[in-house]
Amino acid sequence: MPARYWDEFSAGDVFQTDPVVVEEANIITFAEKYDPQTFHTDPEAAKDTFYGGLIASGHQTIGMAFAQFIRLDLFAENSLGGPAMDEVRWSAPVRPGDKLETSVEVLEVRASKSRPDRGLIRLQFTTRVGDTDVAQFQTTTFLRRRPSGDDA
Amino acid sequence: MPARYWDEFSAGDVFQTDPVVVEEANIITFAEKYDPQTFHTDPEAAKDTFYGGLIASGHQTIGMAFAQFIRLDLFAENSLGGPAMDEVRWSAPVRPGDKLETSVEVLEVRASKSRPDRGLIRLQFTTRVGDTDVAQFQTTTFLRRRPSGDDA
Repeated sequence: MPARYWDEFSAGDVFQTDPVVVEEANIITFAEKYDPQTFHTDPEAAKDTFYGGLIASGHQTIGMAFAQFIRLDLFAENSLGGPAMDEVRWSAPVRPGDKLETSVEVLEVRASKSRPDRGLIRLQFTTRVGDTDVAQFQTTTFLRRRPSGDDA
Repeated sequence: MPARYWDEFSAGDVFQTDPVVVEEANIITFAEKYDPQTFHTDPEAAKDTFYGGLIASGHQTIGMAFAQFIRLDLFAENSLGGPAMDEVRWSAPVRPGDKLETSVEVLEVRASKSRPDRGLIRLQFTTRVGDTDVAQFQTTTFLRRRPSGDDA
C-alpha cells in the first residue's frame, strides 16, 4: 500500500497488519532494557510467578503491533510524529511463540486549526493471539495534508 | 529501597528514578523492531525530516522511564502485572545523548473487591530532559497485599 496523505483516511477505515511471532529471546532482550521484571526476563524463575512462565512485556506487545502497522507504509514520509497514546489495555498474557495479529481502525480524522498543512488521525489498535484479545490501544498522529494543487 | 506491599503505598508518594542516557545506537536498534520510521532509524535521512535529526521512539522513552522505576525494586516480587496504561503524552523530542530523569507519583491505591490478596496502584510518570518535560503517562499495576498476620 502506498503512503497516504491525511485527506485519504476516513473514520471507520480498517487495516490488517501482517502477523508477527513473539520470540523468547526477544522477550528477554527487550525486558532487560525496558521492563526488567522476573516474569519477563527469566524463563526459569518465571515459572514460580503468578503467570507460571515467561510472558512478554506489555510495552513490547504494543511496540510490535505498532511496528507492523508502520510496515504497511500508509504513513511513511507523511507522518509528523505522534503526540499521544491512550487507553492501553493488556487483557491476556503473551507468551513465547504466540502469533500477534493486529487490526487497526481509524477512529477520527481532524484537520488542524492552526496548521493548514496537517491533520490529526486517531487509530484504535486491537491485537489478538488466535481468538483472544491480548492488547488494545489508541494512537494519535500528525499527518501531512495533500498539498493544494495536487491531483487527488 | 526494599519491595513494598500494596498496603505500604499512599496517594501522593513521590519517587525519583536514577537518570538514564539515551544512546544513538539504542534508538536505532529499538526502532528497527518496534517503530521503524525514518526519524527513528536513519540518522542521515532523519536530517531531512520534520525533526531535523534522529529522535527516540516515544515507545522507547516510556519504556526507559518505566524500567528505571522498576529498578528501584519497590514492586519486585509483589507485582502481579499491569492491565493498563493511560494518557501517554510525548511533549518534546528526545535526541541522542539526552539524559532522562523521571519522577513517579502515586495517584491512587484501591483494594480489590473480588481478590482480598491484592490491590491496584495507579502511578503518574513525568520524564524530563533538563527542565523540559518530554513524556508523561499513567500506569496501573496489581500488587500483593501484606499477608494477614505479617507484622507491619
